[in-house]
Amino acid sequence: MPKRIAAFGEVMMRLQVPGYDLLSQSNILNYTFSGTGVNVVSALARFGHTGHLVSRLPGNSLGDAAAAYLRKLGIASSLIHRGGNYLGMYFLENGFGVRPSRVTYSNRLESSFNTAPAGEYDYDDIAAQIDAVHFCGISLAMNDGVRHHIKSLARAVKQRGGSVIFDCNYRPSLWGEDGYVKAKPHYEEMLHLSDIVIMNEKDAIYTLGMFSEKTDRTEQLMELIPAVAKQYQVQVIAGTHRSINNDNTHTLRGFLFKNECFSFSEQLTFSVYDRIGAGDAFASGIIHGEMEGFPPEKTVRFAAAASMLAHTVSGDTPMASEMEIVRAMTESVGDIER
Amino acid sequence: MPKRIAAFGEVMMRLQVPGYDLLSQSNILNYTFSGTGVNVVSALARFGHTGHLVSRLPGNSLGDAAAAYLRKLGIASSLIHRGGNYLGMYFLENGFGVRPSRVTYSNRLESSFNTAPAGEYDYDDIAAQIDAVHFCGISLAMNDGVRHHIKSLARAVKQRGGSVIFDCNYRPSLWGEDGYVKAKPHYEEMLHLSDIVIMNEKDAIYTLGMFSEKTDRTEQLMELIPAVAKQYQVQVIAGTHRSINNDNTHTLRGFLFKNECFSFSEQLTFSVYDRIGAGDAFASGIIHGEMEGFPPEKTVRFAAAASMLAHTVSGDTPMASEMEIVRAMTESVGDIER
Amino acid sequence: MPKRIAAFGEVMMRLQVPGYDLLSQSNILNYTFSGTGVNVVSALARFGHTGHLVSRLPGNSLGDAAAAYLRKLGIASSLIHRGGNYLGMYFLENGFGVRPSRVTYSNRLESSFNTAPAGEYDYDDIAAQIDAVHFCGISLAMNDGVRHHIKSLARAVKQRGGSVIFDCNYRPSLWGEDGYVKAKPHYEEMLHLSDIVIMNEKDAIYTLGMFSEKTDRTEQLMELIPAVAKQYQVQVIAGTHRSINNDNTHTLRGFLFKNECFSFSEQLTFSVYDRIGAGDAFASGIIHGEMEGFPPEKTVRFAAAASMLAHTVSGDTPMASEMEIVRAMTESVGDIER
Amino acid sequence: MPKRIAAFGEVMMRLQVPGYDLLSQSNILNYTFSGTGVNVVSALARFGHTGHLVSRLPGNSLGDAAAAYLRKLGIASSLIHRGGNYLGMYFLENGFGVRPSRVTYSNRLESSFNTAPAGEYDYDDIAAQIDAVHFCGISLAMNDGVRHHIKSLARAVKQRGGSVIFDCNYRPSLWGEDGYVKAKPHYEEMLHLSDIVIMNEKDAIYTLGMFSEKTDRTEQLMELIPAVAKQYQVQVIAGTHRSINNDNTHTLRGFLFKNECFSFSEQLTFSVYDRIGAGDAFASGIIHGEMEGFPPEKTVRFAAAASMLAHTVSGDTPMASEMEIVRAMTESVGDIER
Amino acid sequence: MPKRIAAFGEVMMRLQVPGYDLLSQSNILNYTFSGTGVNVVSALARFGHTGHLVSRLPGNSLGDAAAAYLRKLGIASSLIHRGGNYLGMYFLENGFGVRPSRVTYSNRLESSFNTAPAGEYDYDDIAAQIDAVHFCGISLAMNDGVRHHIKSLARAVKQRGGSVIFDCNYRPSLWGEDGYVKAKPHYEEMLHLSDIVIMNEKDAIYTLGMFSEKTDRTEQLMELIPAVAKQYQVQVIAGTHRSINNDNTHTLRGFLFKNECFSFSEQLTFSVYDRIGAGDAFASGIIHGEMEGFPPEKTVRFAAAASMLAHTVSGDTPMASEMEIVRAMTESVGDIER
Amino acid sequence: MPKRIAAFGEVMMRLQVPGYDLLSQSNILNYTFSGTGVNVVSALARFGHTGHLVSRLPGNSLGDAAAAYLRKLGIASSLIHRGGNYLGMYFLENGFGVRPSRVTYSNRLESSFNTAPAGEYDYDDIAAQIDAVHFCGISLAMNDGVRHHIKSLARAVKQRGGSVIFDCNYRPSLWGEDGYVKAKPHYEEMLHLSDIVIMNEKDAIYTLGMFSEKTDRTEQLMELIPAVAKQYQVQVIAGTHRSINNDNTHTLRGFLFKNECFSFSEQLTFSVYDRIGAGDAFASGIIHGEMEGFPPEKTVRFAAAASMLAHTVSGDTPMASEMEIVRAMTESVGDIER
Repeated sequence: MPKRIAAFGEVMMRLQVPGYDLLSQSNILNYTFSGTGVNVVSALARFGHTGHLVSRLPGNSLGDAAAAYLRKLGIASSLIHRGGNYLGMYFLENGFGVRPSRVTYSNRLESSFNTAPAGEYDYDDIAAQIDAVHFCGISLAMNDGVRHHIKSLARAVKQRGGSVIFDCNYRPSLWGEDGYVKAKPHYEEMLHLSDIVIMNEKDAIYTLGMFSEKTDRTEQLMELIPAVAKQYQVQVIAGTHRSINNDNTHTLRGFLFKNECFSFSEQLTFSVYDRIGAGDAFASGIIHGEMEGFPPEKTVRFAAAASMLAHTVSGDTPMASEMEIVRAMTESVGDIER
Repeated sequence: MPKRIAAFGEVMMRLQVPGYDLLSQSNILNYTFSGTGVNVVSALARFGHTGHLVSRLPGNSLGDAAAAYLRKLGIASSLIHRGGNYLGMYFLENGFGVRPSRVTYSNRLESSFNTAPAGEYDYDDIAAQIDAVHFCGISLAMNDGVRHHIKSLARAVKQRGGSVIFDCNYRPSLWGEDGYVKAKPHYEEMLHLSDIVIMNEKDAIYTLGMFSEKTDRTEQLMELIPAVAKQYQVQVIAGTHRSINNDNTHTLRGFLFKNECFSFSEQLTFSVYDRIGAGDAFASGIIHGEMEGFPPEKTVRFAAAASMLAHTVSGDTPMASEMEIVRAMTESVGDIER
Repeated sequence: MPKRIAAFGEVMMRLQVPGYDLLSQSNILNYTFSGTGVNVVSALARFGHTGHLVSRLPGNSLGDAAAAYLRKLGIASSLIHRGGNYLGMYFLENGFGVRPSRVTYSNRLESSFNTAPAGEYDYDDIAAQIDAVHFCGISLAMNDGVRHHIKSLARAVKQRGGSVIFDCNYRPSLWGEDGYVKAKPHYEEMLHLSDIVIMNEKDAIYTLGMFSEKTDRTEQLMELIPAVAKQYQVQVIAGTHRSINNDNTHTLRGFLFKNECFSFSEQLTFSVYDRIGAGDAFASGIIHGEMEGFPPEKTVRFAAAASMLAHTVSGDTPMASEMEIVRAMTESVGDIER
Repeated sequence: MPKRIAAFGEVMMRLQVPGYDLLSQSNILNYTFSGTGVNVVSALARFGHTGHLVSRLPGNSLGDAAAAYLRKLGIASSLIHRGGNYLGMYFLENGFGVRPSRVTYSNRLESSFNTAPAGEYDYDDIAAQIDAVHFCGISLAMNDGVRHHIKSLARAVKQRGGSVIFDCNYRPSLWGEDGYVKAKPHYEEMLHLSDIVIMNEKDAIYTLGMFSEKTDRTEQLMELIPAVAKQYQVQVIAGTHRSINNDNTHTLRGFLFKNECFSFSEQLTFSVYDRIGAGDAFASGIIHGEMEGFPPEKTVRFAAAASMLAHTVSGDTPMASEMEIVRAMTESVGDIER
Repeated sequence: MPKRIAAFGEVMMRLQVPGYDLLSQSNILNYTFSGTGVNVVSALARFGHTGHLVSRLPGNSLGDAAAAYLRKLGIASSLIHRGGNYLGMYFLENGFGVRPSRVTYSNRLESSFNTAPAGEYDYDDIAAQIDAVHFCGISLAMNDGVRHHIKSLARAVKQRGGSVIFDCNYRPSLWGEDGYVKAKPHYEEMLHLSDIVIMNEKDAIYTLGMFSEKTDRTEQLMELIPAVAKQYQVQVIAGTHRSINNDNTHTLRGFLFKNECFSFSEQLTFSVYDRIGAGDAFASGIIHGEMEGFPPEKTVRFAAAASMLAHTVSGDTPMASEMEIVRAMTESVGDIER
Repeated sequence: MPKRIAAFGEVMMRLQVPGYDLLSQSNILNYTFSGTGVNVVSALARFGHTGHLVSRLPGNSLGDAAAAYLRKLGIASSLIHRGGNYLGMYFLENGFGVRPSRVTYSNRLESSFNTAPAGEYDYDDIAAQIDAVHFCGISLAMNDGVRHHIKSLARAVKQRGGSVIFDCNYRPSLWGEDGYVKAKPHYEEMLHLSDIVIMNEKDAIYTLGMFSEKTDRTEQLMELIPAVAKQYQVQVIAGTHRSINNDNTHTLRGFLFKNECFSFSEQLTFSVYDRIGAGDAFASGIIHGEMEGFPPEKTVRFAAAASMLAHTVSGDTPMASEMEIVRAMTESVGDIER
């Protein structure tokens, strides 16, 4: 049965140099609007749920363009506020082969989202309208105001019996020096509030400061994730292991830990067109599986296939339907569909 | 010596989303005009023959644009009629890696070509102007009117001593339910009229309802194609085996059966840029070889190389000259030509 | 107070050659999705109402793209059905100066909208969700099936106490030979059902077969419109007189007849960028004024200014906010806004 | 009755900066292929004649692209030779308002056309295939080799009873210092050979060195053109007076002198989108009128309207059909055609 | 004799929606880099002077792109610092006819330029390398840090015997509430330091709080500008009166007050393509005239013509050479230059 | 310590068909300006040196655009002359997979650079401003005038104690028939003048006519390069061995011979986006290493990595900073940088 799911998060304007030019070579940018929350609830809307975004956009042309774009993605807009003056932006220069892609941010701390005052959102009213809410570690890194909104809304949803989903998503550049130390208490608070968490063993080691004597990633994972689940009382923990190959392909394996059991997807290897947002596609697959009551093995395979497909479309936001993902789970590469 | 070769077939407008965007992500389309007949006679014109198209285009802006495009491709336009109101169209969204390409058709049954009335074409007059005529299974699937034009023109050409070429090209979506049953009598009639046929063992099994106990494709091919040639009195049967690899490459091998002998090309593996129309490039290579009196081994190798190169250019229509194909038959990948 | 307003109408794909090239000169098209109903309710949504579209889109990539585009325009999509196979399309070649623009249609009669079967729409359920419904003469020209949907929905809305709005919008090419004769009974039926009608004296003369001895357009208008209002019991009749000048400008004056009185806007003269859809902007202004209870003079001036601004934006669909229209009603041309 | 008309002239590659950017601001060029002869016979082909081009293109990618483009324009290509290495090119930066357009040439003297050796063309064979031939003063300015081809072909056509058409088209930058002195004998030779000449009083004064005491352009015209016709035995002389207005419009009036009578078109004023090639459209109108036996007044009005329309399409080459020109002669500016 | 002239000012990234689309309609932006100082010294470099920019750009991809663009404009880059994190940006949606253009800013207060710390620039070292320095009221509006840099550099240049140029350029949105009151002391300080000032009577009235009983703009000008020159000891004051017409043209007249005399340019009326930066072109013309010792009437006519031409090129930055400006001062609109 | 390095060479306009279309399929070109000298000194400027170009550009729009582009690349322009009429151009059609890229030249022999008269450059004055000068075999192939400039400048630099760098870069199509015989004396003269030479064993065998009994490339290299160094007294000889693989990757290994020792880079294999100019990136790396006094092993590894990265950016000109090259020397492929 379709659920009502909200994400709380910032809308970013993505300004991408077309093709493989650098910013100093080109004079054209393609723009779209995205963000972890945008990507997750847009994918969930595509799967048949109602996907709300709780966010704040400026009351100007850029805000209008962002709002129109979110509607186009199928996102319900009744919980989006207008106010403040600026939109967070990032510039993307596509890498090629051995040359990595490059992302340059504008000053997002001044954005409408990151300057939303206390009292901007009515947590309880929002909680009453939704079955689950999604947060991520990127918003958590912003400032105390945003962190207050996050935790208050999480508590309100929890109190109303809704589910709380948290994607750890630690970004070193956002937390600055001694970032792990600064981040830890906030991450711990979020984990305590969460029912579903997206993370892997690296988050456990670096952000939560846990320790493993193992050296193999999978062994570390299988030691630490159950410990996290137990310590913070998290029902479901899921995540991926990714490796980047020399030939423009990535290799990905998803895992899901639930009821003291691990489920794993196959190890998938595939050509990559646009890597940004592929983690959000994985998260959306896990949430969909959990909301629909899939068996864990199906959930993790669905999420991994959703993530794989998200690497093959342009933009941050997953565009695959449930049917396309199921087909990618089962069939080999096909000829033209006509 | 150059020949006068006509194709009877529909002109389609191809509307392609640039790059790898979906129709719901983009707002731009690139358009060209193509069709099996267009592709085949354009290639033959490039090889030095006179390539006619027998078709019907609407008398409006779209028809003007299509006619101009066909002239640009080098197609002789004196047998193209103007009338009716619509042009068949298809939209193409490019796939990437594990995500397949997607084709969406407009209502081609209402097109000028598919609504050409009885009496539209003067079969005998056309036959008098050409040495050979090409038909394909796509047109054959349209409606009784088109089928009548096809068979009448085939008979007229045959009567005048010209060659009839038929590309089986069975498209399940066009014949609908019980398609093979509906199609079989028409295919059989065409085979009886044809001198050169493009098909492989799958057409024999599914469309003609033949049976083989073999399980290997090549063994099936070597059993069934001679049987088809004998039963329908076809002088030349040629076709390809294609497999699609995980790394954005295809593998292709051509065969040609003539005088009770099989000739095969090398098995070619190559990166694919635009797969549509590559089968028509193969057909054009077979026709050119036969018209020029190449030995069968050269014909099939030429056709396979023509098909391989057609995968590397944009659009449905092959663009390689005879010299470029011959070079691709003999040399390895080269550096820039300057 | 914002109202819930639906339009019943077809969604068309607009495929426009960029700049001033002809279809036979270019190879690129820009596409958007529009339609009289789309334009009207999108504008009303921008004015703060809930704008529904009652329509039917194909369940394929084109339908997905159209649905996404309508959401982007702010149109509520819960009354949009998916089914059938085709989308109506039109190609637009921009004119320049003395060279007129040129529109070429695909076969819209086969579209999902125009082939919606009896029973497709639950008229009463729709009527229960809206305060007013908009129809236009273009849909009325399609076929008996569409006409049945139109009249049934109009009656259902009327029965529930909602308002019926009808834009006469007679297109000679759609009704064919003896078009006025064929159209008249349907137009009369619609007028009887309508509360607000968009038309001018030409519709009265040609479609309704009325007669005036006057030769001046304004005199004809002032004679015939009151007669129409009386005969068909229409509360509000509004429309425009347009003239096209040599220097790429148009001149427009709006009128509104209500309570036996005419109100007129100023005669506006302005440079034209994209003329298509400007009539729908006028209609949306009239509807908004009526729904909000503006005095008639304000309504007609608002509608004329809305129409004027719609000539200055690209695409069929008006993009101006209420604030921008009010400013255009009162201020002279301004310098950059920064 | 349609005629077979050839033009002898160079094919130029036009490389245009899109929009109103300068070459030092942009990084994109749009390219087409044109030339006086190209423009004239393409227009004549559009009017139903067979339009040949006698020219020479390089045997490389640029030559292939040019040849394809000429076919697209409807030009018969059997008299186009391939050889030499280069194609003439010009770069176009569009002006805006008070800023004039700017044309920068590549070295066209090294082009395949301008280096065609003696013996390249079989004058008599060409003359046998055509009813009329067109030359222009631009080719005449190139070098002795080209001038030899021009005069030899003109004589061959004349001898076979065909018509010779000459457009004076004097370009000061091509003849260099003392240009008029250098040019005069060649112009006189061409006038003696010609049946139809495009020129005005300025050509008479500057190139032919004639003298008038009048100061008004029209008076000069009416004195000198009859003198030219008489002295050089020319049957038809036609041309235009153009003035450029401040508001992005031009004013144009055509004249035609035949049988000792002047005919004039209306004075036309219209917005200009692309001025290049508009003179060739006028010439094509004159030739068409003469070939079809129009009365002189109709011919000059048709030619002026053809020229006016040519200012409204992109590219050098006229794109209007006879029907569109006739409509422009008779109707005022129209609304969208749909 | 060419001079060494520096501007102190911010570099802005201009992100423009191509054509006439709104941000909510398009998905493409063209970007360039500009700013009052950029525009002025780029124009001066084009006139043969050495044009320095004193500014600060971020040490990332955006900063690299900006620096490359400034070099392309001909600006000497040795006084440009790299540091800080952000670049000021503005988004431009082009207006059309009655619809005004719209500018939306990012948070420029966080830009590298506006956060340059005390001690960033070595005022005396800069002053030693230049003959004149240009400031504008936009920078003056930023913050105390920038104002300190401005005044310190102005003093250093003055002390070294260089000229100080100040463009009043008051932008209400930048000074906020009670802006004139806040701005006045800073403007007065700048006027005291300046040799050349760009302003008109409105600046005198609003920013300097002066009063005139006249109602006509020209009369106000002729009363107040001499008073300003006297009170603040300014040698040259120049500026423009602009009016915006209904037909997409502007009317402009320049004035220059020097040695107690006014000089005026003709009143120029012209079509406008890109209005932004046209004031900077005027300023560059005034500075060039003063540096070269033109008579005042020539200077003001040159500046007005430079400004007029700047309305006809894309981008903020003037692109005309001295020769092109002189030609625009003397000739009427011309045909294509070839 | 940064050096002042000049290259003497022609600036070419590169006109590239976007994507993978042929010239006969597209109507758009992207243009940039490049050349061996441009590429080398632009890269050196990026590494912190002052990079001069000694060249000649036409005094028209194309020359202005080229000059602006060179400034953008960071090239010092004070030694660039303006004069002559034409710019060398080449058209590039991108290959894909088995279809090779295709380059078509305009007539560069008429370019401003190749027609610079004797006395155009003041060799001694240039030599006084630089520490090193770079020449290449492409310029050497042009004509006697260019060869005279090359040798005179080389001698002037040598006399002033500067270094002479020569890239052999033999292009068969430029020297024509018996090219090696014609070229040899000029190459020998350049080698005698040079301190650093870019070449490999093929240049020794074909251009210098040396002989080796070895068949393995590396063995030939190790036999012939020391012989060249000895015979012509060259301090440093460096070059690469490249092989082109079937899967769109190239394999490259650099060598450097100095002080009678060979140093080799690793054998690098990488995906290729734009192959043109990658040899110039290698040369720039060798020059930078020598100028900075890197140990030979570091120099050759730096040069090979610089060349590898140059294959991954669009355009002929390397865009990588020293930091990016060093990272590519040490790290494996990375994820997005953000």
